[in-house]
Amino acid sequence: MKEIKPFVTLVGAGPGDPDLITLKGIKAIQKADVILYDALVNEELLELASEHCTKIYVGKRAEQLSTSQDQINQLLVDYALTHGHVVRLKGGDPFVFGRGGEEIDFVRQFDIPTAVVPGLSSSISLTGLQQIPLTYRGIAESFWVITGATKAGYLSEDLYKAVHTNATVVVLMGFAKLKEIIELYKNNNKADLPIALIQNGSLPNEKIVLGRVDNILEQAEASAIGVPAIIILGEVVAKHLEFENVKQQLQFIEA
Amino acid sequence: MKEIKPFVTLVGAGPGDPDLITLKGIKAIQKADVILYDALVNEELLELASEHCTKIYVGKRAEQLSTSQDQINQLLVDYALTHGHVVRLKGGDPFVFGRGGEEIDFVRQFDIPTAVVPGLSSSISLTGLQQIPLTYRGIAESFWVITGATKAGYLSEDLYKAVHTNATVVVLMGFAKLKEIIELYKNNNKADLPIALIQNGSLPNEKIVLGRVDNILEQAEASAIGVPAIIILGEVVAKHLEFENVKQQLQFIEA
Repeated sequence: MKEIKPFVTLVGAGPGDPDLITLKGIKAIQKADVILYDALVNEELLELASEHCTKIYVGKRAEQLSTSQDQINQLLVDYALTHGHVVRLKGGDPFVFGRGGEEIDFVRQFDIPTAVVPGLSSSISLTGLQQIPLTYRGIAESFWVITGATKAGYLSEDLYKAVHTNATVVVLMGFAKLKEIIELYKNNNKADLPIALIQNGSLPNEKIVLGRVDNILEQAEASAIGVPAIIILGEVVAKHLEFENVKQQLQFIEA
Repeated sequence: MKEIKPFVTLVGAGPGDPDLITLKGIKAIQKADVILYDALVNEELLELASEHCTKIYVGKRAEQLSTSQDQINQLLVDYALTHGHVVRLKGGDPFVFGRGGEEIDFVRQFDIPTAVVPGLSSSISLTGLQQIPLTYRGIAESFWVITGATKAGYLSEDLYKAVHTNATVVVLMGFAKLKEIIELYKNNNKADLPIALIQNGSLPNEKIVLGRVDNILEQAEASAIGVPAIIILGEVVAKHLEFENVKQQLQFIEA
């Protein structure tokens, strides 16, 4: 019998398009004895695994029973001890709101070695694919990525600070709080700030809505955009190729 | 003769390890008629190009004559018009302080179609490889990526705001300003904040220095760490596997 060498690798699968995983991520998948994967992971990637690999869905979906974080942590350890190399395949990057840190911490308690293969976070990659530059000389010297889903359920305190900066702000998992975010920006004299919403980014059913803080809610409703979506706030959004078109259309409507 | 179809694709090559490019990035390289590449791009990636592909180095290196941004912009257009598909291969991600936005803007003026293939920014990936989670429930609800090299040469205003937040802060191209950054954090009662420096991340000669704001300069000097390096400030740095060891060593020295 093959000796079992427990090992856990966290792999970022990228934002959705299976071509947006790294070569190193593919190599990890090919070497996996077990893969634990999330809802946002493209299942085409699982086909790269070896024949003997056990694939287990541990995704979380709204309104549906799912594997708890504690269960996932325990599964990582159990499978590593019984099967060897476990790949934890996560959407985006494992450490950008992916609770990868907690998973690593738990596994380390059992003296099981770990590795991390970074992935393209939707925050950087979905903006890039849409040719919205997160930074731009003279416009934005930084970008700030903030979760819309804090543990306590409130809008992150960081957003209350971000509104007072020139940083490009990307909010992940924040679509359900879009109205609150809009209110916050309006109350801080940023009604004119360009904003974009991207749903299902990098996939064939990708949808983007462009606008300004004071009209994005109507735009979002008109286009029936929904989760999963990211929110981008900042002057750089106006660099999108369609932004001028959108602006002209809006001016026509508002005239 | 083959019809020339001008096209420019900005491709992020990732942080250095050639396995940290995406599949889509590789496909773009394989289809390139011309590649314009930077200093921080791993030259192994160029071997993936087709035989007829023209490869041109346009990197910038300190203390050395190099191609100016205006020249690069013009080369993108000229080669697209004369050769067809130009791949602009940039270290990290093209839109994270890579001036990719300016390049796209310039090319668009000539009605040449463009595409962007995002890459792993060193800000997310070098931290991930070192198993420093940028976000962590209860510790950091956001991360903020800031340039250390503003157009005007001063420390970015954003850093003066970042010091007052709980965001994990990553400074790119800021090693030359490390002392200033340390002063800023000390002056704002953050002398105890964990900090990491990563040089040549993802490459065989990678070096990491861990410490706290009030001792990192000595640590950096002792280890002879230098550019290119990124700076990570935040409580999440203490999650690094060696951080406790470093702490104990420091306590021994300081006792």
